[in-house]
Amino acid sequence: MSEIAPRPVIILCRPQMGENIGAAARAMLNFGLTEMRLVAPRDGWPNPKAVAMASGAAGQVLDRARVFPTLAEAMEGITYAFATTARGRELTKPVFTPATAAARHREEVSQGGRSAFIFGPERAGLENDDIARANAILTVPVNPDFPSLNLAQAVLLTGYELSRGALPDQPMPTNRRPAGEVPADRIEIEKLADHCESRLDAAGYFFPATKAAAMKLNLRNMWSRLALTRADVQMLHGALRQLTRR
Amino acid sequence: MSEIAPRPVIILCRPQMGENIGAAARAMLNFGLTEMRLVAPRDGWPNPKAVAMASGAAGQVLDRARVFPTLAEAMEGITYAFATTARGRELTKPVFTPATAAARHREEVSQGGRSAFIFGPERAGLENDDIARANAILTVPVNPDFPSLNLAQAVLLTGYELSRGALPDQPMPTNRRPAGEVPADRIEIEKLADHCESRLDAAGYFFPATKAAAMKLNLRNMWSRLALTRADVQMLHGALRQLTRR
Repeated sequence: MSEIAPRPVIILCRPQMGENIGAAARAMLNFGLTEMRLVAPRDGWPNPKAVAMASGAAGQVLDRARVFPTLAEAMEGITYAFATTARGRELTKPVFTPATAAARHREEVSQGGRSAFIFGPERAGLENDDIARANAILTVPVNPDFPSLNLAQAVLLTGYELSRGALPDQPMPTNRRPAGEVPADRIEIEKLADHCESRLDAAGYFFPATKAAAMKLNLRNMWSRLALTRADVQMLHGALRQLTRR
Repeated sequence: MSEIAPRPVIILCRPQMGENIGAAARAMLNFGLTEMRLVAPRDGWPNPKAVAMASGAAGQVLDRARVFPTLAEAMEGITYAFATTARGRELTKPVFTPATAAARHREEVSQGGRSAFIFGPERAGLENDDIARANAILTVPVNPDFPSLNLAQAVLLTGYELSRGALPDQPMPTNRRPAGEVPADRIEIEKLADHCESRLDAAGYFFPATKAAAMKLNLRNMWSRLALTRADVQMLHGALRQLTRR
């Protein structure tokens, strides 16, 4: 994974459950984020439940986490801060998506600055007093009828988007089927693979027996990989029947 | 949230813990995915622990979930299937990221097809026998030193990326600072806001008292929103001192 340096700071503001702090540390490390700051964690610090949830390498994120009494103090060295919230629209503030926030983060870095993403307490989220201390709002575009992201999930999506921008654009793998053809259903592919396998089996193709399983796997994988049309499948069934007629 | 129709199917292959099935249903619904299929869930179906975890609207995803004895049968009506795995590279198969998979999904839809994303059991993930039944592999690019995504997180990132492509590109909010200026630290902004507030307080600005809290909040929000440089902050401190000298 390519690195953008410096990586943003993740600030958990008044987090409640130790388990959620641990899960957030895991989500951070999944995308190479390692600097966590905690503002007034409800159950004090260190928190054994956070450590138990983090486990392994993510425990090091917790070991290095710094604790501050207020959000204002936790902003040390930060030049641009995003408040993650679905609300706060009554405050005049630019609103970013994770994608545009990742771009803004890179811009900040290129100007010699350092960014932070602030996440609120699990139950109620950030208060206006917190949001007023950030430069901008970050809102994850979830289903408005079911916006149920938990703390670690919000951190995860933010980390994912920050990494996403750091990766080179990957071209889409090709394996196109001819335009205008009806793609075969997966069940049709499955039946074709079954048909082919049974015919080959009867013909003694899967020899020696010790290699049969691997040969069958490779064959089935090939059928799945091909972008067969419905017409292809019919044709192949016919060919198989014909080949084994005698 | 804009809709792409039809939305892909999420197939959970031999899921183990009911809680994880419920969490996957929540992750799906966060991004508007509603069609879940289950292949041989370990603890049978329906599963009360899945229902307890899903809660609310996500319970409807579980209510409508269909159960199949094998992955092959669960592929009914699917024309293109992605196997989500970090492994399986020994099988010749195109490998997609969530972003390129979302684009491939849209291409499939435009050709009149239907796609599915297959997720394996929590502990071991998909087996080669499962992967051989998919057209392609989907791998989420996580930190190779800490690739610890759980089932619901993998579903969440997939759903996010599918929604992401469905949204119009959002321009980045503007609020640029002059190039070549050193951005002020958040602590410097905080001190400026404190300074300003205390001077205004002494001057009797926050009147009437019932409106003082809201006035202070708006003022603090303004300071945070501005892209102030270090030089700006020094200048404003000086201006404040000067204004209140008498």
